[in-house]
Amino acid sequence: MDLWITEYQTPALGFSCKINSTLKVEQTPYQHLAVVDTQQFGRMLLLDGMVMTTDVDEYVYHEMIINVALNSHPNPENVLIIGGGDGGALREAVRHPLVKKATLVEIDAQVIEASREFFPQMSCAFENPKAQVIVEDGVKYVKDHVDEFDIIVVDSTEPVGPAIALFSSEFYKACAGALQEDGMLVVQSESPFFNRNVIEMAYTGISEHFPLAKLYLASIPTYPSGLWSFTIGSKRYDPECPLCADYALKYYNPEVHRAAFVLPEMTREILAGIGSGR
Amino acid sequence: MDLWITEYQTPALGFSCKINSTLKVEQTPYQHLAVVDTQQFGRMLLLDGMVMTTDVDEYVYHEMIINVALNSHPNPENVLIIGGGDGGALREAVRHPLVKKATLVEIDAQVIEASREFFPQMSCAFENPKAQVIVEDGVKYVKDHVDEFDIIVVDSTEPVGPAIALFSSEFYKACAGALQEDGMLVVQSESPFFNRNVIEMAYTGISEHFPLAKLYLASIPTYPSGLWSFTIGSKRYDPECPLCADYALKYYNPEVHRAAFVLPEMTREILAGIGSGR
Repeated sequence: MDLWITEYQTPALGFSCKINSTLKVEQTPYQHLAVVDTQQFGRMLLLDGMVMTTDVDEYVYHEMIINVALNSHPNPENVLIIGGGDGGALREAVRHPLVKKATLVEIDAQVIEASREFFPQMSCAFENPKAQVIVEDGVKYVKDHVDEFDIIVVDSTEPVGPAIALFSSEFYKACAGALQEDGMLVVQSESPFFNRNVIEMAYTGISEHFPLAKLYLASIPTYPSGLWSFTIGSKRYDPECPLCADYALKYYNPEVHRAAFVLPEMTREILAGIGSGR
Repeated sequence: MDLWITEYQTPALGFSCKINSTLKVEQTPYQHLAVVDTQQFGRMLLLDGMVMTTDVDEYVYHEMIINVALNSHPNPENVLIIGGGDGGALREAVRHPLVKKATLVEIDAQVIEASREFFPQMSCAFENPKAQVIVEDGVKYVKDHVDEFDIIVVDSTEPVGPAIALFSSEFYKACAGALQEDGMLVVQSESPFFNRNVIEMAYTGISEHFPLAKLYLASIPTYPSGLWSFTIGSKRYDPECPLCADYALKYYNPEVHRAAFVLPEMTREILAGIGSGR
């Protein structure tokens, strides 16, 4: 029997992986959750039918959503991750020597449980002494904390359903409030090829509440178009400038850090269309 | 009726596009050729079931396979393109003001004909006064010319079937011979995520016959993994250094040119494994 799973990345584009087995399928209070074992990418986590992460390429997304901010902030002691229940971003945060505390706030406990059960390489940081894992609504959590974090990372799903609040100007304002006076906010902002509107939403909203807003890119094979964007807001430090030169991971290195901010012309034009350009 | 076309990018990975219509399906003397009209990417050319180019994202591949060399060679008067029967690379070559002559050598006349019929934005350069279109085996053509071209571009299919000769050390040696003493060779060398062996083959072979060999990358949504590599061999000039700063296309700009040579750590390791590293 030939089993395949297909993500409809758009209504007219399918991304299909041959699978060895289905490990978990459940409806949580928030979303449909599936874990499958694919031949191409190892184990894969899907939420509402969208590929969230896979064993084989998770390192790109997790390294790049965390380490750009960590290596451009001189003292990233206290990190907050909103979403990211798989634990991959948390793993990246706790292994940085300057990070003293990393708090993960995930709304859906069943994502955390699925990761504990099926993704040991990502969930390995849940028990780390620097880590705190909280099951709560990230929007509420951020509003309840003021002037506390050095870095906030929003590792969310696409802006549909409950995640739509994580792309609002009001939420970015609350993040700015929860950050210290030299803090940084990083959010995943989808594909420059397919999700121009998401980039516009994130970049516009972050620009309203942070003096510096920049976009950077990474290549992630299992995400639509293979090219993914992150939008970063900074109160003081230039996020383009890596501080430590001796910092090579599996995808990330300081040269990749700088180059990730160099945008293809068609992506520059998205930002120029918003008004500020680069 | 819901029509989809699926490319099996690997035996365990399918890339499926919803199509409006099938415009052409034929067996040429060299390969199976299909043109379909997709909803996501406009018209799409497939050879032996593999996506070669689409209306929507062809600009990335064609800009990047041509303009990096054109903008790092001070006098790219005479350009040879092997393969590239769709005409997209030729279009990029002839529009450069310093290019006086661009010769396209494609083995399969039916690819050229299909492009003339269905891809006007790519085939527009066939009648350009700077262009010469020859239907011939590129391997033979290169052997028959000595000390003639400033730039040779190998716009080939994957190294299977007839294209395998285009990835051999012997062919790269012939290209070095057909180039002038300060010439450059550019070849497409597949995905760093999926085709490590192709990169190794191209990089090793080119290193044997050119004093400078470098790899650069571009993001192409319809190619496997979305990240594509090009290997460049140069007899004199450093291909990383753009000469003209006022040079913005749709994807390419001089900053993208430099950044394209910055390799993620896992891609650096492919080259380091070959021995020379970067």
